[in-house]
Amino acid sequence: MNRAHNFSAGPAVLPIEVLQETSQAVLDYNNLGMSIMEMSHRSAEYDAVFVEAQKDGLEILGLSPDEYAVLFLGGGASLQFLMIPMNFLKNKADYVNTGYWSKKAIKEAQWVGNTNVVASSEDMNFNYIPKNITFSPDADYVHITTNNTIYGTRWNVVPDTGNIPLFADMSSDFMSRELDYSKFSLMYAGAQKNIGPAGVTMVVIKKSLLERQKDNVPTMLNYKIHIDANSMFNTPPCVNVYVVGRVFKWIKKLGGLAVIEEMNMKKASLLYDYIDANSEFYRGTVANKEDRSIMNVTWNLPTPELEQKFVKEAREKYNMTNLKGHRSIGGIRASIYNACPIETVQALVKFMEEFKKENS
Amino acid sequence: MNRAHNFSAGPAVLPIEVLQETSQAVLDYNNLGMSIMEMSHRSAEYDAVFVEAQKDGLEILGLSPDEYAVLFLGGGASLQFLMIPMNFLKNKADYVNTGYWSKKAIKEAQWVGNTNVVASSEDMNFNYIPKNITFSPDADYVHITTNNTIYGTRWNVVPDTGNIPLFADMSSDFMSRELDYSKFSLMYAGAQKNIGPAGVTMVVIKKSLLERQKDNVPTMLNYKIHIDANSMFNTPPCVNVYVVGRVFKWIKKLGGLAVIEEMNMKKASLLYDYIDANSEFYRGTVANKEDRSIMNVTWNLPTPELEQKFVKEAREKYNMTNLKGHRSIGGIRASIYNACPIETVQALVKFMEEFKKENS
Repeated sequence: MNRAHNFSAGPAVLPIEVLQETSQAVLDYNNLGMSIMEMSHRSAEYDAVFVEAQKDGLEILGLSPDEYAVLFLGGGASLQFLMIPMNFLKNKADYVNTGYWSKKAIKEAQWVGNTNVVASSEDMNFNYIPKNITFSPDADYVHITTNNTIYGTRWNVVPDTGNIPLFADMSSDFMSRELDYSKFSLMYAGAQKNIGPAGVTMVVIKKSLLERQKDNVPTMLNYKIHIDANSMFNTPPCVNVYVVGRVFKWIKKLGGLAVIEEMNMKKASLLYDYIDANSEFYRGTVANKEDRSIMNVTWNLPTPELEQKFVKEAREKYNMTNLKGHRSIGGIRASIYNACPIETVQALVKFMEEFKKENS
Repeated sequence: MNRAHNFSAGPAVLPIEVLQETSQAVLDYNNLGMSIMEMSHRSAEYDAVFVEAQKDGLEILGLSPDEYAVLFLGGGASLQFLMIPMNFLKNKADYVNTGYWSKKAIKEAQWVGNTNVVASSEDMNFNYIPKNITFSPDADYVHITTNNTIYGTRWNVVPDTGNIPLFADMSSDFMSRELDYSKFSLMYAGAQKNIGPAGVTMVVIKKSLLERQKDNVPTMLNYKIHIDANSMFNTPPCVNVYVVGRVFKWIKKLGGLAVIEEMNMKKASLLYDYIDANSEFYRGTVANKEDRSIMNVTWNLPTPELEQKFVKEAREKYNMTNLKGHRSIGGIRASIYNACPIETVQALVKFMEEFKKENS
């Protein structure tokens, strides 16, 4: 296979061995005479796939199945923006606004109840992560977005929310690094960036949180109902969860999040070091180095015309795809998730040097 | 490939050529150097896949894109149970209760507002379809379940609701027959029975209906928002929609719903004729022949023990899977959706004859 250098922000690059396994399972799963897409979700064979993905997911995060439950839901992270306040916003909720996706989460919470934007980096077009935040002692929860795909920022350190449950949208850096995940009471991630194909959202939720859940939540938006049915209240996105499970096996085989983080740091450093050394031509967009994402690297060229030329040449010369920044802010963005090979980042840096020489 | 005889009620059997195409696309789509699962949903290449599935879907149903919009959403048909009343239940809604799934739809509507169960077959354990129903002239809509997977019944004729918009959960017989689909203002189907893998729900909605939509509906539950974004408000279940698109090509190649219905009638008749001719051993569960589903055929054997033996032997001797009736009612169920080959039904009838001889 002649693989593209795929810098898509999501759906994004997946490990080749996962693609190969999935390709086979789509034809015939385990010699059962049927595709992974044709199997009843209630069958023993499929149930084993599902339960193993839940188990491996928690193991990778270093969490206990006694304390946490794993859900694989449809509707995307965007549906979680609504489910969270529907289930847990009683008195008020604290939200930190670090960008486009945080704002969407805030909007849905406002539909439900009293939503307190406790800190925001909107004043500087989201080019930093707010620090030293004072949270409301009576908040039902604090919500953050751990990595901001569009702006290339991430929370380097998990904020201390004391006794207030911490919730996080981790869509774009889920399982990219070692963290004390037990600091979070609820975390969720659309699979299509770091752990699988679009169509499934993984939710990891502290079981003790259910004591705080509101009454009278509609069925499909009700965490307790999904947890009680072990995430099979209705038919789950079966093939999508299968792929997520294979990605988890790949992460485990590599050595877990410590190794993954080392790989990611190496790739990100390669790119950031080059940008910093050539800042007269390539200007990083993030104000403070400690806030830089290791998943989405964003920068500008001297002019929008040069940026357009950069994106075009990268695609035409080297099959480097999706380097264009998000439509809301422009510029260049390279998304270098877990499964992005270092060779792809090396090729990008090489092209950047070539392009700079020819255009400066 | 040694294919199983797969009678699963869903996720269910898919056309072999669709599995082969998908297997290839999972490795590499159109020689782009990336998997169909790795492509940005905003890329021109993926967008073409998505838009073509929408177009083909309407074409198969005989509906115009000027009048109807197609959405591919996550969360399953169960999420539609909530979305429908959230968007359209203002004064009151009429629901017909024909089984397990109708009841779930009714439950969610009751959460939203005034829900009128205008007819029900629960008195006879849902073994028939109510006739001669009088609908409420002031209802916002009428909701029916066109095919009842568990009980083996279907609406043979579309009820006349006059000026009241007709909504239908078509999950288990979507695109199985020719109908005047323009009688419906909103129809939806979880893909995993007749049109694809689990993880995507197709919603076909009359655009003029939006004038009746309620204000202040949360973003992800808001039909207008999804329609305005052409079903890409957030990342759709990309690979699932790809497969649905391939199934549509398969339906079109065969000759559309007229041919599909003829194939389905032939398969269903084979099974029903055999059951009727051997009713001393195999007892169909549906009261009236005209209410019989052509997708899910349900029957009983003389005793539950014989039913258990039947299911076990079918699997062990002939790799016939998922013949066990739904856990809520027991018995035998053979789901024979569009992609179920006639050879599978022939093999089943042959086994039924063999089993009857050995056990009666």
